[in-house]
Amino acid sequence: MKKPDTRPVNTPAHLPAPAHTLAEPDTPFAVVDVHKVLRNAERLARRAERLGVTLRPHVKTAKSLDVAALLRDADGAPCPVTVSTLAEAEAFADGGYTDLTYAVGIAPHKLPRVLTLLRRGVRLRVLLDSRAQAEAVADAARRAGLAVPAQIEIDCDGHRGGLRPDDPALTAIGRVLHDAGCLDGVLTHAGESYFATTPGTRRRAAEQERDAAVAAAERLRAAGLPVPVVSVGSTPTAHAAEDLTGVTELRAGNYVFFDLVMAGLGVCRVEDLALSVVVTVIGHRPEFGRILTDGGWTAMSRDRGTARQAQDQGYGLVTTLDGDLLPGLVMTDASQEHGTLTARDGAPLPDLPLGTRLRILPNHACATAAQHPGYHVVDSSRTGTGAPGAVAYWPRVTGW
Amino acid sequence: MKKPDTRPVNTPAHLPAPAHTLAEPDTPFAVVDVHKVLRNAERLARRAERLGVTLRPHVKTAKSLDVAALLRDADGAPCPVTVSTLAEAEAFADGGYTDLTYAVGIAPHKLPRVLTLLRRGVRLRVLLDSRAQAEAVADAARRAGLAVPAQIEIDCDGHRGGLRPDDPALTAIGRVLHDAGCLDGVLTHAGESYFATTPGTRRRAAEQERDAAVAAAERLRAAGLPVPVVSVGSTPTAHAAEDLTGVTELRAGNYVFFDLVMAGLGVCRVEDLALSVVVTVIGHRPEFGRILTDGGWTAMSRDRGTARQAQDQGYGLVTTLDGDLLPGLVMTDASQEHGTLTARDGAPLPDLPLGTRLRILPNHACATAAQHPGYHVVDSSRTGTGAPGAVAYWPRVTGW
Repeated sequence: MKKPDTRPVNTPAHLPAPAHTLAEPDTPFAVVDVHKVLRNAERLARRAERLGVTLRPHVKTAKSLDVAALLRDADGAPCPVTVSTLAEAEAFADGGYTDLTYAVGIAPHKLPRVLTLLRRGVRLRVLLDSRAQAEAVADAARRAGLAVPAQIEIDCDGHRGGLRPDDPALTAIGRVLHDAGCLDGVLTHAGESYFATTPGTRRRAAEQERDAAVAAAERLRAAGLPVPVVSVGSTPTAHAAEDLTGVTELRAGNYVFFDLVMAGLGVCRVEDLALSVVVTVIGHRPEFGRILTDGGWTAMSRDRGTARQAQDQGYGLVTTLDGDLLPGLVMTDASQEHGTLTARDGAPLPDLPLGTRLRILPNHACATAAQHPGYHVVDSSRTGTGAPGAVAYWPRVTGW
Repeated sequence: MKKPDTRPVNTPAHLPAPAHTLAEPDTPFAVVDVHKVLRNAERLARRAERLGVTLRPHVKTAKSLDVAALLRDADGAPCPVTVSTLAEAEAFADGGYTDLTYAVGIAPHKLPRVLTLLRRGVRLRVLLDSRAQAEAVADAARRAGLAVPAQIEIDCDGHRGGLRPDDPALTAIGRVLHDAGCLDGVLTHAGESYFATTPGTRRRAAEQERDAAVAAAERLRAAGLPVPVVSVGSTPTAHAAEDLTGVTELRAGNYVFFDLVMAGLGVCRVEDLALSVVVTVIGHRPEFGRILTDGGWTAMSRDRGTARQAQDQGYGLVTTLDGDLLPGLVMTDASQEHGTLTARDGAPLPDLPLGTRLRILPNHACATAAQHPGYHVVDSSRTGTGAPGAVAYWPRVTGW
């Protein structure tokens, strides 16, 4: 058995260098269009302002300090953010962010890392939905002699975790946290809104999300427990909510990039997708109507989120390197390092010779982005057509 | 726009340190049982020996020099290997491996990296199935003044790329390569064998794979073109082949770890699975029959390979930290950082308190392994029950 060795094998040596155009880096690689990120970010920032709530972007999608910098206010101050891992919390703390919510139920063994951040002056909120977690948080706070801000997760739609707003345990948990100086608020996430295919169902999902969070906060307040934060959000509901009375903050993550799932729901247009993957044509099987590329599931992820939608987009839609959609061409299959493109609805297979570079628009931006160490960055506003002038390389936060 | 910056955000700082037991590292993390790897490796090594062919393991599954070291002969010399990316080729070349096959159709822009390895004395074979690729390879070889060993991909089952053995282009492509001193052999992969659910269909898939490769080699030889290498392989066919007359080498990758897809086919048993992911219980929803963990699709991948099999295993089966299967418990859903466990077939939901660590056995080892920066390593032979004595941390090769 070899000695333990924690060095990465080749990550630093193989991190791609900044490229001047998308024709240069070796494929496959991820591309972010900064113009589209800014447009998507502004759209939701305006909504949050109109609704009178603080926007707390979820950085789990881009996992990039550079992308998050695009979401800052005009004054350039770091915005409040939501994180999905402590690795993100630590990286964003290192980047100057001091107002964080870790929106995954806390495991007690993770509290020492939380305390380390709190001692650095980073206000990192944890999430919980059980008395056992509340007691672990209260105990850790008392031992450390500092408050561990904790939010109680509320279930608004049966999607995943959380307490129903009328759960008898709610106030008992609130009391445990309050007595240790840790009760910070309530938080809910309308996970089922990802299946809400009409503006009306998304609006109702947003109302249900708001009603659940506000009802839980009111129950806690009626028991004499102060609830400063009432947090709601998902990308579909954040774009559908019309009245957030009683809510203090709105969370969303996917909206910075959007993806084919969101376009399929009608939350965005295909032309709003800010993330894509550049691949190279490596083969042709005209007898099967197939074009093969070097972008498989390691580049796109195995996510098939549009499979349940009215229009199944396979592993993604295909554009030219300049970002122009190739109508009818779909990435229909993926193996580890091979992508298969086929034409649908009788569309002719376009003539794409060996070596042609294409971009694939993903089903699920969070999952596709997670397959890459970082992003090559283009700005389609510079030419008006999404042309491939890469201007930077932005690394991603990795691990847990 | 910020200045280009190619530094990784936090990978080095957050690489887990070697742990003494599986109770210590933060979850989720990947675990490899070295005892099972050795057993799986020996099983296929013996088969290859009996069949009279060279075994060329595909390192795309583990992407680990440490795992590959377990596959070496008794003399400890590096074995021939197959790679799926040039990043793997470069990392294995750095690790002393000099006999490599890059088994994805070559894109011409990748040839400079291939030439760099060849100049270092690494025999890196490339794969192709078109005249355009053959001309690009021949041209690069002539300009560089050295042979670029190239194999012609043969299609044995319509799965992906390759030429049918009777394709008129075969000998023309062979001639282009031969004239540049580059023709190294033929290669085929029975990708459809992953859907062969009986020993008989897998045996026939292995025969078909052999017949296609040998027929192509014979056609080239009949045209006066020498074909030193006749390469076949997939994990299902490698374990089913009974006669490989005419074949010189066998490739397989998944077999070092195996997974639930292979167990579902009957190629291995569930107890042979050498890769798992350790997760922590973070919540309970008894009203829905759910247990929540901190292992979502970032830890398991989005692969749902068993969905098409007779027994759908969701995102994986669940064991204790010691590796004992929890009967009837399945990871049925995944979001980015949440896993959902439910009991099936009326099995009772086991009592797994907050903070309990579990291991999830994956559908598709290649895809799950690809989500992790490395492996914590245990040796279940030391206690006989898969007990959690972690002895090392083995990094993975990442990127392309």
